[in-house]
Amino acid sequence: MTACRLFALTPGEPAGIGPDLCLLLARDAQPHALVAIANRALLAERATQLQLAIKLIEVAPDAWPNTPAPAGSLYVWDTPLPAPVIPGQLNQANAGYVLETLTRAGQGCIDGHFAGMITAPVHKGVINEAGIPFSGHTEFLAELTHTAQVVMMLATRGLRVALVTTHLPLKDVAAAITAERLTRVTRILHADLVEKFGIANPRILVCGLNPHAGEGGHLGREEIEVIEPTLDQLRGEGLNLIGPLPADTLFTPKHLDHCDAVLAMYHDQGLPVLKYKGFGAAVNVTLGLPIIRTSVDHGTALDLAGSGNVDSGSLQVALETAYQMATSRA
Amino acid sequence: MTACRLFALTPGEPAGIGPDLCLLLARDAQPHALVAIANRALLAERATQLQLAIKLIEVAPDAWPNTPAPAGSLYVWDTPLPAPVIPGQLNQANAGYVLETLTRAGQGCIDGHFAGMITAPVHKGVINEAGIPFSGHTEFLAELTHTAQVVMMLATRGLRVALVTTHLPLKDVAAAITAERLTRVTRILHADLVEKFGIANPRILVCGLNPHAGEGGHLGREEIEVIEPTLDQLRGEGLNLIGPLPADTLFTPKHLDHCDAVLAMYHDQGLPVLKYKGFGAAVNVTLGLPIIRTSVDHGTALDLAGSGNVDSGSLQVALETAYQMATSRA
Repeated sequence: MTACRLFALTPGEPAGIGPDLCLLLARDAQPHALVAIANRALLAERATQLQLAIKLIEVAPDAWPNTPAPAGSLYVWDTPLPAPVIPGQLNQANAGYVLETLTRAGQGCIDGHFAGMITAPVHKGVINEAGIPFSGHTEFLAELTHTAQVVMMLATRGLRVALVTTHLPLKDVAAAITAERLTRVTRILHADLVEKFGIANPRILVCGLNPHAGEGGHLGREEIEVIEPTLDQLRGEGLNLIGPLPADTLFTPKHLDHCDAVLAMYHDQGLPVLKYKGFGAAVNVTLGLPIIRTSVDHGTALDLAGSGNVDSGSLQVALETAYQMATSRA
Repeated sequence: MTACRLFALTPGEPAGIGPDLCLLLARDAQPHALVAIANRALLAERATQLQLAIKLIEVAPDAWPNTPAPAGSLYVWDTPLPAPVIPGQLNQANAGYVLETLTRAGQGCIDGHFAGMITAPVHKGVINEAGIPFSGHTEFLAELTHTAQVVMMLATRGLRVALVTTHLPLKDVAAAITAERLTRVTRILHADLVEKFGIANPRILVCGLNPHAGEGGHLGREEIEVIEPTLDQLRGEGLNLIGPLPADTLFTPKHLDHCDAVLAMYHDQGLPVLKYKGFGAAVNVTLGLPIIRTSVDHGTALDLAGSGNVDSGSLQVALETAYQMATSRA
């Protein structure tokens, strides 16, 4: 049996579905001690609203649990919340609370208290409107851990897709595919598949940038001028890279059955098929951090908060992935 | 029962798997009279090589069949072939033959002899090397039929994806998404879904260009400046358009269960998920032509010609689609 470890769970935006998802998950026992970093009264109130009898067990840095919470209960590290929460209604007064839960989780990972952190969605807009510059969990954690380059990877059962570029306008993508960026991203993907996923010699399929991977230069030259030479150089370092391959034929069993991850050049090249395949059960993993962090792949769904009509499938996969990563890393 | 119609089938590159696929299909009876436009001796030779006992029945413009060929036989409109064919070996001497089969099929459709044409793959390279400018079936048929704008659509059971831009380097895609092009392509898609697919009020999901469909302008402004106003204008003409939607969440059952087609802005945004879903059973349909033309979604697979190790699934779907389209159109 695997030793019980301690993990941090952040419910994110208090007016969204994050608190709901954490409570729904607590109906069943987890294999590890999972600590929700959240306001206890908020969770109690949401549980009442959802008619869920979840026992909230208060824990704190001087009194961490060392066994999983039983089914129907949830460990909570109580975190002060400035203003009452109405499900579905954003409130700038609580932006600082959201960031405090992330800081507690991230710093706890850095300090070795937590084996990893799992995040439910935050609402970027309301945090920025509160006057706090914030572009997302990933950037926040990169700064907290002093990490220069992180890599976004989405995973579902049977498929992992990492991205060379993420949230860029399409017109800026081609210019952003530089040898330097591709080298950094590919090295991080390889290293984290080895270190955090326990894959000895990960086999990575790399997409071309252009349709048909440029078709020998007829449909774009980035493959010839940037991608192929960079992959060749990385192969010289021992990386097991296949490609560049046309994205529209790469995502077929012939290729996918024999790979550990796909590296797509940009967001909409890699994620539609991942989310199609993994509908409702995909996890977002941040690679390159010194800590383990996984996340749901969806947003705050403000209109569904408190409704009970939510699917905790993605959070479940996010938890399982964090557990597996922590075990591989140990 | 549907009336028997006449369809043209072009096996394409003679050294590729096209002839093999046509022979494999002829093992079973078709619901319509299907005429292979090809060299008869070539088909006979390939049948021997594949150990397939297919009876080749010669037909011609003055003697078209009016019943389907029985199982184990194939109608052939014999077309002269300049040089002997060795499977897998391209020969420039036969480039003119390939184009002649396309001309016979296309002109036969224009003249009303054929209800539609179904094409196996050609090899662009060898035709160009023979000194004949040729950029693909689609462009060839557009010219033959004097069509200014065609639209590429791929389909598999349960999903159709049409493209606003096709074989463009990625760096040129954003600038090619103009109101004019989007208008032309969307109108053709709508009109052909009505006329050739028999869908009364087709519901079309439209992808954004940028990740998250631009996220309110934070990740690109083409949605705000070009796509949304264009869709609004087309809605004013009565088109049933949803979007622009983020491509990575559009391809999920919630959206797809209630649509007739997806309009993607570019090749690798729409085709990876289509080919993942429809692996081995996808068809390429050219919209906007005055004739019905469907095609396999794969290449000549020169290395497999004559091997018997080929999958005729895509050609089967191409045939079924052409039959359905002709029926809807009638």
